[in-house]
Amino acid sequence: MTPLTLHPDRLFPADPATRAIARSIYEGIRGLPIVSPHGHTDPVWFVTNAPFTNPTELLIVPDHYVLRMLSSQGIPLSALGVPTRDGTPHETDPRAAWRLFARHYHLFRGTPSRLWLDWVFAEVFGLSVRLGEASADLYYDTIDAALKTDAFRPRALYERFGIELIATTESPLDPLDHHRAIRESGWSGKVVTAYRPDPVIDPEAPGFADNLRRFGEVSGEDIATFDGYLRAHRIRRAHFRQAGATSTDHGHPSAFTANLPAAEIEALYAKLLGGAVTPAEAELFRGHMLTEMARMSIEDGMVMQLHPGAYRNHDPALLARYGRDKGADIPLAGEFVRGLKPLLDAHGRDPRLTLILFTLDEDVYARELAPLAGHYAALRLGPPWWFHDSPEGMRRFRERVTETAGFYNTVGFNDDTRAFLSIPARHDVARRMDSAFLARRVAEHQLDEAEAHAIARALTYDLVKQAYRL
Amino acid sequence: MTPLTLHPDRLFPADPATRAIARSIYEGIRGLPIVSPHGHTDPVWFVTNAPFTNPTELLIVPDHYVLRMLSSQGIPLSALGVPTRDGTPHETDPRAAWRLFARHYHLFRGTPSRLWLDWVFAEVFGLSVRLGEASADLYYDTIDAALKTDAFRPRALYERFGIELIATTESPLDPLDHHRAIRESGWSGKVVTAYRPDPVIDPEAPGFADNLRRFGEVSGEDIATFDGYLRAHRIRRAHFRQAGATSTDHGHPSAFTANLPAAEIEALYAKLLGGAVTPAEAELFRGHMLTEMARMSIEDGMVMQLHPGAYRNHDPALLARYGRDKGADIPLAGEFVRGLKPLLDAHGRDPRLTLILFTLDEDVYARELAPLAGHYAALRLGPPWWFHDSPEGMRRFRERVTETAGFYNTVGFNDDTRAFLSIPARHDVARRMDSAFLARRVAEHQLDEAEAHAIARALTYDLVKQAYRL
Amino acid sequence: MTPLTLHPDRLFPADPATRAIARSIYEGIRGLPIVSPHGHTDPVWFVTNAPFTNPTELLIVPDHYVLRMLSSQGIPLSALGVPTRDGTPHETDPRAAWRLFARHYHLFRGTPSRLWLDWVFAEVFGLSVRLGEASADLYYDTIDAALKTDAFRPRALYERFGIELIATTESPLDPLDHHRAIRESGWSGKVVTAYRPDPVIDPEAPGFADNLRRFGEVSGEDIATFDGYLRAHRIRRAHFRQAGATSTDHGHPSAFTANLPAAEIEALYAKLLGGAVTPAEAELFRGHMLTEMARMSIEDGMVMQLHPGAYRNHDPALLARYGRDKGADIPLAGEFVRGLKPLLDAHGRDPRLTLILFTLDEDVYARELAPLAGHYAALRLGPPWWFHDSPEGMRRFRERVTETAGFYNTVGFNDDTRAFLSIPARHDVARRMDSAFLARRVAEHQLDEAEAHAIARALTYDLVKQAYRL
Repeated sequence: MTPLTLHPDRLFPADPATRAIARSIYEGIRGLPIVSPHGHTDPVWFVTNAPFTNPTELLIVPDHYVLRMLSSQGIPLSALGVPTRDGTPHETDPRAAWRLFARHYHLFRGTPSRLWLDWVFAEVFGLSVRLGEASADLYYDTIDAALKTDAFRPRALYERFGIELIATTESPLDPLDHHRAIRESGWSGKVVTAYRPDPVIDPEAPGFADNLRRFGEVSGEDIATFDGYLRAHRIRRAHFRQAGATSTDHGHPSAFTANLPAAEIEALYAKLLGGAVTPAEAELFRGHMLTEMARMSIEDGMVMQLHPGAYRNHDPALLARYGRDKGADIPLAGEFVRGLKPLLDAHGRDPRLTLILFTLDEDVYARELAPLAGHYAALRLGPPWWFHDSPEGMRRFRERVTETAGFYNTVGFNDDTRAFLSIPARHDVARRMDSAFLARRVAEHQLDEAEAHAIARALTYDLVKQAYRL
Repeated sequence: MTPLTLHPDRLFPADPATRAIARSIYEGIRGLPIVSPHGHTDPVWFVTNAPFTNPTELLIVPDHYVLRMLSSQGIPLSALGVPTRDGTPHETDPRAAWRLFARHYHLFRGTPSRLWLDWVFAEVFGLSVRLGEASADLYYDTIDAALKTDAFRPRALYERFGIELIATTESPLDPLDHHRAIRESGWSGKVVTAYRPDPVIDPEAPGFADNLRRFGEVSGEDIATFDGYLRAHRIRRAHFRQAGATSTDHGHPSAFTANLPAAEIEALYAKLLGGAVTPAEAELFRGHMLTEMARMSIEDGMVMQLHPGAYRNHDPALLARYGRDKGADIPLAGEFVRGLKPLLDAHGRDPRLTLILFTLDEDVYARELAPLAGHYAALRLGPPWWFHDSPEGMRRFRERVTETAGFYNTVGFNDDTRAFLSIPARHDVARRMDSAFLARRVAEHQLDEAEAHAIARALTYDLVKQAYRL
Repeated sequence: MTPLTLHPDRLFPADPATRAIARSIYEGIRGLPIVSPHGHTDPVWFVTNAPFTNPTELLIVPDHYVLRMLSSQGIPLSALGVPTRDGTPHETDPRAAWRLFARHYHLFRGTPSRLWLDWVFAEVFGLSVRLGEASADLYYDTIDAALKTDAFRPRALYERFGIELIATTESPLDPLDHHRAIRESGWSGKVVTAYRPDPVIDPEAPGFADNLRRFGEVSGEDIATFDGYLRAHRIRRAHFRQAGATSTDHGHPSAFTANLPAAEIEALYAKLLGGAVTPAEAELFRGHMLTEMARMSIEDGMVMQLHPGAYRNHDPALLARYGRDKGADIPLAGEFVRGLKPLLDAHGRDPRLTLILFTLDEDVYARELAPLAGHYAALRLGPPWWFHDSPEGMRRFRERVTETAGFYNTVGFNDDTRAFLSIPARHDVARRMDSAFLARRVAEHQLDEAEAHAIARALTYDLVKQAYRL
C-alpha cells in the first residue's frame, strides 16, 4: 500500500525563495479560527449530536463532487449506495459501496476532492496509507470505528476543527426550531441560519403555489397582495435575524434584476397568484424581488448573497431516479453589467447595502465583476464558487480580480458545503492558496512582506467578519 | 549563421527541482509509440510511397499555420508558391518561395509552428543552423537532397517516427481504395480511416445535393426517404469499419443538437431533398443528425468526435483566389450546455457511447466542458485543438479542465495535421507539456511522483487507445 | 513609517536563472526613449508650461482608477476634492482630500495604481517612506513644494522622462490651436494629435446634432449630404495630419462594422439629419462609418485604432453629480469575428491599411483577435487596455495572443493616460513584463537569448514607430 502523507508545503510554489515566504505567511494564519459564513451543513447534527452512521453515508452518498466523477466513468449512483426515488434497487451494503469508491479513487487525481478527502483521511482519521482497492477495508473499519466514538460526534468535531461560527441556509418556510434548540442547549458552538427565499420568490421553483400558501401561514400575513407578500418577507427576515442570521442568499438562474413601478409589480404578482406566468415573467419577478430584497437589506442590515448561473438538473434521467443535488448542475455563461443595473441604479452606491456576488463563469471575473465591485460601494466579490473552489480556481480568481478590485472588495473564503468533515480542509486550501498568491507578489516585489501578512489575515478572518457583519 | 539546437529541457519549468521531476516523467514516456487517432495525412502517400517533391511543396504550401502568419504580414500566398484558382500568376520556382519564407522566419518566434519546424529541420534533416535569409539555400538544398533518398519516403518516415497507428479522415463518398491498397500491400504500417459525414449531413456544404445523390449511389440505398438515408449511413459506416475506422468525426458550426420526432425529421428531410432550406432548418438537420449518429455509434461501437465552432472561409477574397484551408478560418464563441442537451438527454448516460468534444473557445473548458464531461458517462474531452495545439494552449487546457473532469475523462493527444513530418514534434510538445504540468503538481505535493508517471503514460498512450477503441 | 523602495528586480520571475535573463533583457530596453502613440494628456500643459497646482488636483482628482477604488469603499468623490455639477458641496481643501486618500492607500495593494503611484512618489518626488496616514502631510508638503519649482513644469518633466513623442486625442471640432502653438514655440518636444471623430460619428453622442452643425462650420463643407459629410472628414483629417496626427481613434460600443450601398447610407444619413434614429440605426451608422474611415485611411495613410466595448456611465447618479470619466465605465463582452467582417471583406487584406484593435474583454484575445490578426494584413493588436494595463493583464495578453499572432502583429505599449507623471512608470511596467515574458521563454528554451533581446527592442520601440507610422 502507498503511504499517505500531507506534505507541510503542499500547494506552495516550488521556487525555494517564494516557498519560504509562502510558509511564513501561512504560519501567521493557519491557526486562525474558522468562520464559515455560507454553507449547507444540517443543523440537526448539532441538535441531536448523534454519531454519523457509517463511512459511506458520511463521505460518499451526500458528496455531489464524488458522485459526479464516478458517474462520469459509468458507475451508477445506485451502486454507490445512493437511494433511488423510482423503486429501482440500490446498493444497501455500505461496505460494498465503499469498496467500489476505493477501487476508483485514482479518478480523483488532480481534483480538489482528492485534496479534501486525503486531509479527512489523514488528519481526522489518522490513516497513513493511500485509499485504493487494497486499503478499502482498512479505511472502512478505521472510519467506522472512529464514528462510533464520542470524539467524532458533530459537536466534538466542531470544537476540534476550531470553528468560531458556521452558517446554514434555510427556506423562509423553515420554523428554525433546530437553531433555537442549539441556542437553548447551552452548547458554546455558534450555528446561525441564512435567509434563502428562492422557494417563495422563484415562480418556477417546484411547488411554488403551495410554498406561497405556506409562506402566508408561517408569517401570519395575508399574501393576497404584493404588499402583504413583502410584509411576510419582513416578518420572516426578522425571525431569521433572531436565529442569528446576518445574511440572505439568492440562487437565481441569472444576475438579471429589475425595479418595476408599483403598478407593474402588483399586476405581475396578481398574475402569479393566478397561476400561469411565462418564463420571461418569472425572470422579471425574480429580478424585481432582488431589488426588493436589497431594499429590505438596507432596512434590516442583512447582507445579500447572489449565486447565479447554474443550469440545475441538466440530466433529467438522473433527476427522476435520484433527485436533486447529485452532480448534474452545469454552469452557464454569465452577464452582470446589464443584469445588475436596475438594482445598482437604485441602491448600488448605498454603503448600508452589501451585495456579495458569486459566479460559475470565470470569464466575468476580470471583465465584469472586478470592474463593478471596484466602483460600487454596495458590491463585494464572493470567493471562487463550487467548481472553482479549487487551487487553480482560487489562483485564477485572485489573478483576475485583484488588479481592478483590490483585496478589500473581496470577502474571504466560503466553504459552501454539506461535507462537514472537509470544512477545515477547504479552508486550509484557501489559506494556502492565498499564501502562495501573496508570496509570489512579495517575491516579485509588488508587496512588502509585512503587508502580505496583514492581507492574509484580512482574507482569512477580518474581511469575512466585516462583510458578513458577524 | 545562428546555431540551431533543440535543448533537451525545452518546455520544462525553469525551477530546478520541478525541472528534474519533469525530466524524469518525460523519460518514462518519450519513447512510447505514436498513436495518432485523428489527423489529415493523405493515404495516397502510404500507397505509392513516392518521394515528397520539394521543400516548398512539402513544408510551406500545405501548412495553413505558415500561410496565415505570412499573409498577416502582407505576403501574398501566390508568392509562396500557392497555386491560384482564378488564373492569376503564382510563384512557380519553389526555391524562390522558400527564400521568401526563410527571410520571414523570425515572424514565427513564440509560435508552435517554430517549435514544430525547428524539430523537423534539426531532427529529421539534421540541420544545425537556424533558418534565415543566410541559410535559406543551405536548407533548401539539404532538404531537397534528403527527400530524394529512400529514407525520406512516407513509409520509411512512418517507421522512423515510431508510429503505431495513424487515422485519416474521409467522406462517406470516398471508396476507401487507398486504405484497402495499404492493407493489401503487406506493409506493416497501420493507416485507418475515420467516417466524416459532413458532406452528406450539412445542407450548407458545397455541392450538398450532388453529394446526397452520390451517397445513394455509393451505398446502393434509395435515399428518397429519411429511413433510406439512415440506412445509407449504416452501410457506409460498416464499410468504413472494414477499413479500420473506429471513429466518426463531425465538423459543425456549433454544438447544437436536436432529437426530433419521426414525423418532424422526415418532413424536414423531404424539404431538404426538395432543395431550399433556411439556415435555421439546416442547423436543425445537422443537430438532429448528431443524435442519429450517436444512436448508430451505440449500435456499431464507433467513437464520435465533435469539432464545432469554426467560422470557415472568413476571407472571401482569399477563398476565391486560393480555395479552402488556407488559414482564414476563425474561431467563434462556443455553447455546449444547452446545445448538447437533446443528445445527452437521449444518450448521455449510455456507457456504450463515447462522444469526444473539441472546442476552439477556451472559455468553455472550465465553465462547460469539464462540468459536462465530469458528469456524463458518454462524454470525453479531446485535446486542445488547432489554434490551441500549443504549449500555452495545452497548459490552459489542463489547468482549466483537470480539477473538475480529472485526467481520465480526457483522451490524450491528437495531432490533427496533414503536416506529416511534424507529427513527432507535435506529440513531443504534448508529452513535454504534460510532463511539465504533472511535475508542477508533484513539486507542489498534490500528486505523488509514482502517480505522475502513471498519469503521463495514460495521457500519452493508454487513454488514446481506450477512448478511440484501438 | 514604512520605507518605500522600488526594488530593481520588481515584476521579474522569482526563479534565479529566469530572473537573471529578465534583468539582462530589461537592461537592453530600459533606457529606450518613450514613444507614446496614444494618450490623453492635455496639450495646454505644453503650451503654457504652467506649474501643476497641487498634489490633490494633480494626482487624485483626474485619476479615475483612484476615484473608483475609493468610491468602491464608500468614500464619496466629493470628499476627495472632485467638484460637483449639481451644486452639492465638495471638499475644497486639497490637503484634507489628500489625507483621506493617504488614510486609504492600503486599498491599492495589488493594483497597478499602487505600482504607478509608488514610482511617481519615489522616482519623481524622491519620497522614501510609504504613503499612509502618518506620512500624508510629509507627502503633501514634499510634492507641493516640488510642483512650485521649474523642474516640475510640464516641459521639464517631458524631457526628464525621456519622451520622444506623445500623442493626444482631439475631436474633429477642435481647432488644434494648442498643437500649433507648441510647434511654433520652438520647444523641441513633439506633441501630436489624433483624430477622434466619435462626436460627429456617433448619433448617440451627447450634442450630436450640434456637433454636426459645428463640423460643417469648422470644415467649411456643406454637410447636408453624405458626400459633403465625408468631404468634411477628409478636410479635418488633412488638418489633423498637419498637426502631426498619424492616427485616428474610434471609441465604439462594439466592433460592429457595415459597408452599405450608397443609396442606403445616404438614406440613413438623411434620416439622421432629420433627427430621430433608432439605436439599431445608430449602430448601423457607426458601423458603416468605420468602413468609410478605413477607406480614408487607405487614401491618407492614417492608422486606425478601434477601442470597443465599454458600457459608458454605468452609474447615472455618479454621472449626474460629477460628470463623465470618473471610473464608472464597465467592460462588456466583445465580438469581433462577425462584427469586423464587412470592413475586412472590403479592406482587410490591403497592406496600406493598419487597423489596431483593442479590447476590454480578454476572452477574445485567443479566440478572436489573435486568429484575425494572424491572418489579415490590415490588422494589428493594441496592447492590453485600461483595466488590463497591469502586470497580470499584460501576462495574459502575451500568453494568449503570441502563439497565434506572434510578436510582430502587436504594436508595443500605449499608456493611454492623462496621468502625465505616471507615464514612465506605465512604460516601465510594460518593459518589465515583456522582459519577464521573454525570459521565461528563454529559460524554457523556446527562444534564444539574442532573439529575446531583439524582440524586446521591437516591442518597446520599433514596432510602435512602424505601426503608428511615426
